[in-house]
Amino acid sequence: MTNKKLELIENLESSVRSYVRSFPAVFTKARGYKMWDEDGNEYIDFFSGAGALNYGHNEPSMKQKLVDYILKDGITHSLDMATDAKVDFLHNLNEIILKPRNMDYKIMFPGPTGTNTVESALKIARKMTGRTDVVSFTNGFHGMTVGSLAVTGNSMKRKGAGIPLGHSVTMPYDNFVEDEEDTLHYFERFLEDNGSGVAVPAAVILETVQGEGGINAASMTWLKELEIICKKWEIVMIVDDVQAGVGRTGTFFSFEPAGIEPDVICLSKSIGGYGLPLAITLIKPELDDWIPGEHNGTFRGNNMAFVTAAEALTFWKDAAFEKNIQENAAIVTEFLDDMIKKYPEMKGYRKGRGLMQGIASDIDGFSEKVAEHAFKRFMIMETAGGQDEVFKLFPPINIDKEGLRSGLETIELSIKDALTSMGIDKGAIKS
Amino acid sequence: MTNKKLELIENLESSVRSYVRSFPAVFTKARGYKMWDEDGNEYIDFFSGAGALNYGHNEPSMKQKLVDYILKDGITHSLDMATDAKVDFLHNLNEIILKPRNMDYKIMFPGPTGTNTVESALKIARKMTGRTDVVSFTNGFHGMTVGSLAVTGNSMKRKGAGIPLGHSVTMPYDNFVEDEEDTLHYFERFLEDNGSGVAVPAAVILETVQGEGGINAASMTWLKELEIICKKWEIVMIVDDVQAGVGRTGTFFSFEPAGIEPDVICLSKSIGGYGLPLAITLIKPELDDWIPGEHNGTFRGNNMAFVTAAEALTFWKDAAFEKNIQENAAIVTEFLDDMIKKYPEMKGYRKGRGLMQGIASDIDGFSEKVAEHAFKRFMIMETAGGQDEVFKLFPPINIDKEGLRSGLETIELSIKDALTSMGIDKGAIKS
Amino acid sequence: MTNKKLELIENLESSVRSYVRSFPAVFTKARGYKMWDEDGNEYIDFFSGAGALNYGHNEPSMKQKLVDYILKDGITHSLDMATDAKVDFLHNLNEIILKPRNMDYKIMFPGPTGTNTVESALKIARKMTGRTDVVSFTNGFHGMTVGSLAVTGNSMKRKGAGIPLGHSVTMPYDNFVEDEEDTLHYFERFLEDNGSGVAVPAAVILETVQGEGGINAASMTWLKELEIICKKWEIVMIVDDVQAGVGRTGTFFSFEPAGIEPDVICLSKSIGGYGLPLAITLIKPELDDWIPGEHNGTFRGNNMAFVTAAEALTFWKDAAFEKNIQENAAIVTEFLDDMIKKYPEMKGYRKGRGLMQGIASDIDGFSEKVAEHAFKRFMIMETAGGQDEVFKLFPPINIDKEGLRSGLETIELSIKDALTSMGIDKGAIKS
Amino acid sequence: MTNKKLELIENLESSVRSYVRSFPAVFTKARGYKMWDEDGNEYIDFFSGAGALNYGHNEPSMKQKLVDYILKDGITHSLDMATDAKVDFLHNLNEIILKPRNMDYKIMFPGPTGTNTVESALKIARKMTGRTDVVSFTNGFHGMTVGSLAVTGNSMKRKGAGIPLGHSVTMPYDNFVEDEEDTLHYFERFLEDNGSGVAVPAAVILETVQGEGGINAASMTWLKELEIICKKWEIVMIVDDVQAGVGRTGTFFSFEPAGIEPDVICLSKSIGGYGLPLAITLIKPELDDWIPGEHNGTFRGNNMAFVTAAEALTFWKDAAFEKNIQENAAIVTEFLDDMIKKYPEMKGYRKGRGLMQGIASDIDGFSEKVAEHAFKRFMIMETAGGQDEVFKLFPPINIDKEGLRSGLETIELSIKDALTSMGIDKGAIKS
Repeated sequence: MTNKKLELIENLESSVRSYVRSFPAVFTKARGYKMWDEDGNEYIDFFSGAGALNYGHNEPSMKQKLVDYILKDGITHSLDMATDAKVDFLHNLNEIILKPRNMDYKIMFPGPTGTNTVESALKIARKMTGRTDVVSFTNGFHGMTVGSLAVTGNSMKRKGAGIPLGHSVTMPYDNFVEDEEDTLHYFERFLEDNGSGVAVPAAVILETVQGEGGINAASMTWLKELEIICKKWEIVMIVDDVQAGVGRTGTFFSFEPAGIEPDVICLSKSIGGYGLPLAITLIKPELDDWIPGEHNGTFRGNNMAFVTAAEALTFWKDAAFEKNIQENAAIVTEFLDDMIKKYPEMKGYRKGRGLMQGIASDIDGFSEKVAEHAFKRFMIMETAGGQDEVFKLFPPINIDKEGLRSGLETIELSIKDALTSMGIDKGAIKS
Repeated sequence: MTNKKLELIENLESSVRSYVRSFPAVFTKARGYKMWDEDGNEYIDFFSGAGALNYGHNEPSMKQKLVDYILKDGITHSLDMATDAKVDFLHNLNEIILKPRNMDYKIMFPGPTGTNTVESALKIARKMTGRTDVVSFTNGFHGMTVGSLAVTGNSMKRKGAGIPLGHSVTMPYDNFVEDEEDTLHYFERFLEDNGSGVAVPAAVILETVQGEGGINAASMTWLKELEIICKKWEIVMIVDDVQAGVGRTGTFFSFEPAGIEPDVICLSKSIGGYGLPLAITLIKPELDDWIPGEHNGTFRGNNMAFVTAAEALTFWKDAAFEKNIQENAAIVTEFLDDMIKKYPEMKGYRKGRGLMQGIASDIDGFSEKVAEHAFKRFMIMETAGGQDEVFKLFPPINIDKEGLRSGLETIELSIKDALTSMGIDKGAIKS
Repeated sequence: MTNKKLELIENLESSVRSYVRSFPAVFTKARGYKMWDEDGNEYIDFFSGAGALNYGHNEPSMKQKLVDYILKDGITHSLDMATDAKVDFLHNLNEIILKPRNMDYKIMFPGPTGTNTVESALKIARKMTGRTDVVSFTNGFHGMTVGSLAVTGNSMKRKGAGIPLGHSVTMPYDNFVEDEEDTLHYFERFLEDNGSGVAVPAAVILETVQGEGGINAASMTWLKELEIICKKWEIVMIVDDVQAGVGRTGTFFSFEPAGIEPDVICLSKSIGGYGLPLAITLIKPELDDWIPGEHNGTFRGNNMAFVTAAEALTFWKDAAFEKNIQENAAIVTEFLDDMIKKYPEMKGYRKGRGLMQGIASDIDGFSEKVAEHAFKRFMIMETAGGQDEVFKLFPPINIDKEGLRSGLETIELSIKDALTSMGIDKGAIKS
Repeated sequence: MTNKKLELIENLESSVRSYVRSFPAVFTKARGYKMWDEDGNEYIDFFSGAGALNYGHNEPSMKQKLVDYILKDGITHSLDMATDAKVDFLHNLNEIILKPRNMDYKIMFPGPTGTNTVESALKIARKMTGRTDVVSFTNGFHGMTVGSLAVTGNSMKRKGAGIPLGHSVTMPYDNFVEDEEDTLHYFERFLEDNGSGVAVPAAVILETVQGEGGINAASMTWLKELEIICKKWEIVMIVDDVQAGVGRTGTFFSFEPAGIEPDVICLSKSIGGYGLPLAITLIKPELDDWIPGEHNGTFRGNNMAFVTAAEALTFWKDAAFEKNIQENAAIVTEFLDDMIKKYPEMKGYRKGRGLMQGIASDIDGFSEKVAEHAFKRFMIMETAGGQDEVFKLFPPINIDKEGLRSGLETIELSIKDALTSMGIDKGAIKS
């Protein structure tokens, strides 16, 4: 590495750094789906900050509000004191998102990261039920702090805790066990048999589409059945919508098509709109029985994020906004299906839904290779899954058709590059 | 409460909210040590965002850099990819802070909150030692996520976890046991006796001045002795400088006067300079042996905070900056000593050091009453300690003399108010 | 209760007592399959001390050896010092049982109870693998101390711990999930997917026939497959043969027909022969790497039990002894099948194998009722399963044909009694 | 080792064996304080089965009762069914021991070992308080199963668990910290400060004299103060009298001289009288709220032990029995004080009380050497403490004066042997 700035990072930053290893460039500017590095190279971003930039980079209307707010010396940091920026955000969230969906939830500010909202959700569920165990699902990802990590599946990250992780039980996610029609049947058996060794849990926590775990989408049937089980056993149902929420799957909340009503909803990443740290926990009023300050955090009042978040929510007033995401999603679906048909030698199958889709390849290392070649073609794209077996498309949800097409073209070229560089030809599929 | 906006908060926000209950006003603007509410009332802020606003609100030079960065579409969110803003921050931290202090540490971005840096510190200590237990100290406060909460003393917050907290052992902090010359002697006995039930821990974690726990300041001797114990038993020494660091006690790191070299240092709150979420973990190079991505987080690349943080660090180039903090601290010390002498009926004694000081009163509820009256006089001031027995002064570290004097005057008036309203007169001290 | 002695027990003994509630009589004498109470009533014992009296009560040849030993002032209590009684037991166990079965194991004395051998087995597995989690199976029962309880399924008993039980994961036992051909497929999926949230465990622990859990017998195929999984993933395989071992299922070890070689075997209950407390842990030599005294216990040298145990083992020299158990088992099987056919209204199905069989009834409370009526007919018989849905036949394994026939006749009468008293007639099966 | 039987043990028994390594002889016969090996050598036993043989070996009156019981085919094994043997034991315990001491307790049979009674005590304390943590004391020893081990201090044994041990907090035992007048002050500070990180525990568990931990005797003042703390904070006080109870310290219960009333008392070892496995848990009636069978165990009805235990209790009817123990204790005290004065070069100080005393030597390895030489002189004597720094005298409590004198003489000779063999002379004390 001859780049001076990358060298400085290598010298000074911890060995834990990761993305800078996959995308070794120094970025200086971004707008919408585009990023530029210090040498002026232009990149297409189909990564979107791992779902934190659903509206693209530096969206102009949010940017304007943000600069105005800063210039007028608006409150920057407020813990959980009242500010006009906070009030605006609460108002918009309630009026634009919750009310029209008939959703009655208390809004909690648990600290501005995904793991903070998850930890707060687990706490309130345990407190209100008096139970300790939480059921999570295979390949779920909920965060890096000990409480969240205990309900996260990834073994490398779990080992990182340095302590055994407890008070959690893992159940199979939809389709985890091949040829298994109904993995929830398994969960129910554990609940109903009082000799099963699994106590009725305080909560279940799940993603409707598992981002880090391999872009696994649960079916709507599975989600509905899970809700029925939770109601039957009085288990708090927590949907971690940190990555799949805020439009990523085509609706504001990812679970809307299933018609379920989670007891607790975790949001972060794109809820701030502009990529600024923010997280909220939505809690059914009957569960919202905290002692004041029982969970807190220094940055739970990040007002710049309130400003951009409040503005971002206004986009959802117009039904066309949501419709456009779904059109983009349809284009991606069609494209991926086409790729799978066109390049059977990559042994791929489509995963996910909405603008949270990707292709899993049965060929070891193939998906990583696609992402590598994409980067050579100035595109940012990530892999997912325990073996990085999926390359995933996370374009901004409001990307224009030209940008989308351009990105998809680059992906096809990268697939070809990967096939060539790995020496895979059509003959491969016969074996 | 007749204020419409406060009503909206009460209706929509979770019951967990706390400061808005103590400071029921809607703030709209702030600069330096001043805040304004929606009705134009001007407040003196001696709270400083619980230590996240050490440089005061919306400091002009940071503000300028921030607005410029936003306007030129600088990268907002980057996970741990390289950006010029991040490189600048790393460079300044190394050149201005670490190198001049002969400190050789790797810089980790663990997610932008205090609890995130603490969780990362505990992980690396456990991983590198292969041990599970961590020793923390009575009245320590390290965060709200399960890993950090397990090393936090406060019983209300611990219960909030809803699960027993483990893999931690609490030892008495300096002066915890009255009439006890040397509480570290206890700790050592536990270490040296292999029947003590306390295994040699992976780490100790401590604040040099305990903010939430009651503004308890450890002596320099105690800190040095603790370092000796850690070296002897090969225990990782973690200083959580989230609240006491970044100048709050008069030096950049709070432990500088003790001449110790912690193995791991946790920083957050004011490291971002402007009140934006940021946290870093400083790790001695020989301990920095992470697997890439073993700890991660969506907002570990909050570039706006990098911009303001890099600018804030430049203040430290001039030795006068530090000297001025110490002068301010001396004024506060003198003032508090004076108050204690002048109002013996409040049964107060001074606690803390630097600009992290307060008065503990032996009269139940007195300190809370002082803070309440201060608010009526348009001053923001917090209490600390398990019984809220301390009212604490957290002015901006760069406050000008006029602002400081003005704040101290208000405090004296509030003390008088509290004495009067509680019906305490000088006769009280005889009882 | 008018009986003076039962009154004394009620007054003085803890509320935790249980069997005395089901069998309210004061027993004074026993021999073989017969017991007598203080009033001279004679009972048939098909309970056999929950498997601790496989050779019947007060077997004459053991009795003789025992009295001789006591009269000559043989060592009674020896911790783990050497005594001739211990040497004889070790010799007989090795010569009569282990060698002829080509079994090479170190013999550990972990304290004289079932839970002690289980705790020792879990310790050595964790120590030798450096892993913490142990996989147990639904409806497994391994003991009442915290380590064993953590791998026990029963929810009432688990709650009794008063703390969350950890470092264990429950997997479905054979046939746990209805219509599920192969529950081990689940276990394997969890092992092979590194995002499953289930780490490769230190050990699996299982009973080949679950006594307390409902007389569930694993198939030989399932046991063999489990062994293959353990070998593949280097998991220590622990067979808890405390209840099913020592002839109860027709062979000395219950797993012999499966042809497997567990890494660790737990024995207690009938290993002492005469009903005296004794337990041993058999450990493959390569795993037997304890520090001397790393696990210990005051009564690990119960020499009276060594004397009776050594004598009991001699019975196994003659192949006819084992053959006779199997003949008895065949009689029980035939009888139970006959009952099920003859009394379809009890909605029963046969469970278990060898002399560890019973009938599970789908009618709530039926099996308990059978046991109650049996007691009225002076027979001791227990129920099993989470809902006490099984009445189980545990005659002495060396019972003579007359005794067996007599017991079975009483059971048929008790079934009839139960049907009558519950008002169940043949019509019931139609509903 | 040329002895065939010891070779057999070495070949067949687990590496965990310990005492056979210190006392390599094959014992065949014992009576009172005497043991004989296979070669007819006669040994003096000042070990008494680590406190399980307080009445000496094979005491004639118990032996007679036991043989009679066996010969008449008395019930051997009864789980928790009623037998006449059990009723007799309950009656004697209540009439001879509890009533005369004004003690009102329910009697629980938790399984026949020390660790079983401890586990049952911890369970009921946690259940009745709804709290999880238990406070134990430095150098406490309570058993080898995970629940008991978590409240045991010894680090080697704790590590043996292979898992982190939790739900326990260790506080300093009386005199643990040198020059510390009152270690309970430390405990109280943790309780009263709600930021201490230590929650009010479910229970404290303690030995009044710590056997394994180094023959540390708590003062009566310390015990009384601890009781006051427990009452004040509604903490269940558990006295583990497994080793110090049943006369070992001069009274039936070790805590009698302190005048305290523990909530729960654990007894095992010598409660059976003859060295047969037995344990009981005494629980104040108001705490005895178990679900039937919530704690159970196969060997909780060891009737042979009931027979000998009932007989042993009759000894206590005569006040002379207790008085004689105290006379023996006085002789031991005088002897040890004399030894310390006479052999200052061994740098010894006396520890313990009653017939549970020993000498701790500040010379590394000295006490072990004394025990080794004692064995060469055909005496069985054990060491205690984390560094085996204490040689301890555990003669039968009913030993006759001749036996006692003979044992003490051998000890003096062994001290001399040790001094000589280690090359220690009187000059040593000057350094």
